[in-house]
Amino acid sequence: MCSNCDYTIHGRHHHYGWDRSIPPVETVAPGSTLEFECLDSASGHYTPSSTVADVSTLDFSKVNPVTGPIYVDGAEPGDALKITIQEFKPSGFGWTANIPGFGLLADQFVDPALHLWSYDKATLGPSAFSSFGRVPLKPFAGTIGVAPAEPGLHSVVPPRRVGGNLDIRDLSAGTELYLPVEVAGALFSIGDTHAAQGDGEVCGTAIESAMNVVLTLDLVKGANLRMPRFTTHGPVTRHLDARGYEVTTGVGPDLMSGAREAVSGMVDLLSGQHGMSAVDAYMLCSACGDLRISEIVDQPNWVVSFYFPRIVFE
Amino acid sequence: MCSNCDYTIHGRHHHYGWDRSIPPVETVAPGSTLEFECLDSASGHYTPSSTVADVSTLDFSKVNPVTGPIYVDGAEPGDALKITIQEFKPSGFGWTANIPGFGLLADQFVDPALHLWSYDKATLGPSAFSSFGRVPLKPFAGTIGVAPAEPGLHSVVPPRRVGGNLDIRDLSAGTELYLPVEVAGALFSIGDTHAAQGDGEVCGTAIESAMNVVLTLDLVKGANLRMPRFTTHGPVTRHLDARGYEVTTGVGPDLMSGAREAVSGMVDLLSGQHGMSAVDAYMLCSACGDLRISEIVDQPNWVVSFYFPRIVFE
Repeated sequence: MCSNCDYTIHGRHHHYGWDRSIPPVETVAPGSTLEFECLDSASGHYTPSSTVADVSTLDFSKVNPVTGPIYVDGAEPGDALKITIQEFKPSGFGWTANIPGFGLLADQFVDPALHLWSYDKATLGPSAFSSFGRVPLKPFAGTIGVAPAEPGLHSVVPPRRVGGNLDIRDLSAGTELYLPVEVAGALFSIGDTHAAQGDGEVCGTAIESAMNVVLTLDLVKGANLRMPRFTTHGPVTRHLDARGYEVTTGVGPDLMSGAREAVSGMVDLLSGQHGMSAVDAYMLCSACGDLRISEIVDQPNWVVSFYFPRIVFE
Repeated sequence: MCSNCDYTIHGRHHHYGWDRSIPPVETVAPGSTLEFECLDSASGHYTPSSTVADVSTLDFSKVNPVTGPIYVDGAEPGDALKITIQEFKPSGFGWTANIPGFGLLADQFVDPALHLWSYDKATLGPSAFSSFGRVPLKPFAGTIGVAPAEPGLHSVVPPRRVGGNLDIRDLSAGTELYLPVEVAGALFSIGDTHAAQGDGEVCGTAIESAMNVVLTLDLVKGANLRMPRFTTHGPVTRHLDARGYEVTTGVGPDLMSGAREAVSGMVDLLSGQHGMSAVDAYMLCSACGDLRISEIVDQPNWVVSFYFPRIVFE
């Protein structure tokens, strides 16, 4: 375990959904460093011997377990919780699935699909996607948040201003994340760890992978943040960008339609150029392709672009 | 002028809006290389001695002139025009304006504002934004397209599937752009050159700057593209990313509202941290900050993030 940690929060201390009434598993002082054991987003449902049949037996009441909550001494509504993400200790096994009814192109991809990943947890070298290519890895936590003020149980699926299922791929080691605190003690939890993901998480899953996370919790009193923000101290895409990108676009008056058009265009391009199935291309896009808004001011048409890193195939 | 070009298309050959009936200024064979003189997007309205008063006297019928059109021999509807962007020859002078009624936060920024830029056109070193910071430059053409099939004059402001005012900041030197051809000869034009811009062009203008562009026009017969696509052969953000990013987010069920929230959050952050006015921060965001879609699948809330490069202040 972590030699410089003040606390280890074991994976048995997980919960499903956000609720301010869930009792904290630990109370810590600001400045404490903790190691969290995070289950994967399917609570261990998939194993190296899983098949596509297992996608249909997933228990949706057991999705996105988060480890916690942690009560931070002195945290009050109006403060920001500063989370300095120190280190990830990945498991070496991961999965990506197309889950019917879920994902940006759910209407086009109605059948379940599953890809299993094996990666070197020591070197974190690029991980093979069948014989088609290799995806550079950069671990992060998809779900990282604090309890909402509103009483009751809130689904873990949507992110909120207090964080949660943000799925921001740059919340990786070295990043400082600031979350608005809405309840006393903040009640911080974390899970849904990913070995890699592109901006958008377009098929609905990333390289889902259990791992431990080491981080430090601090307070910024009276920060009055409206929304989460974060600081990265170095480049975020140099593991992906060395060979440039193939880029498809969606041009039109609706950003969602533009995003769908851009991703759909990339699925067609990759499956045409590399002989993979459409659903494989879709899952690969989710693992490492990026959705960007190229322009949002030239009324009435906006441009959404999908960037796929060429290094995957080289 | 260009020593390896087959043609030079002078700036007097410009038009406003797209219309398939505009006579071509030149007919070229596929594979030809051309140098285009591009006016800036205000047709030279702003000069190094301009003041904010000049924003109100801008003639909107003279916005976004494009140089062309060029008839490409053999181009037919269903083909793609392949544009290999070779080189930019910038002028050294640029401007960024907040134009009332235009831009992502037009409701918040109702007064005109103007920033004038001077940059070294030989080295293209970062350009000072008053005393606040320095913006790394990467020239590209904001408007690059071919004539739509539909007869009549079409506004130059919105981009379309045939390109036009795409404002994609990675259409820089070395990039290959593919545009769907809708009319015989394609009728290619280019303009609206920018010395730098972030993804989104959030205030509505970039570092607007007249420059010459050298490019090669080719055909891909029967490509049947739905939308523009492009290939970059190298990194796209290494001039920006060395010191990481400050990132603000917008979390909610509408991508446009999320984008507005994220940019608004960054304006507040930069003006608070660096003592600049809100409108200065807004224009700076437009010149070098990036709008990305971090997740678009965790129903019903999406995450739009705005990345501002920290190198500007270091």
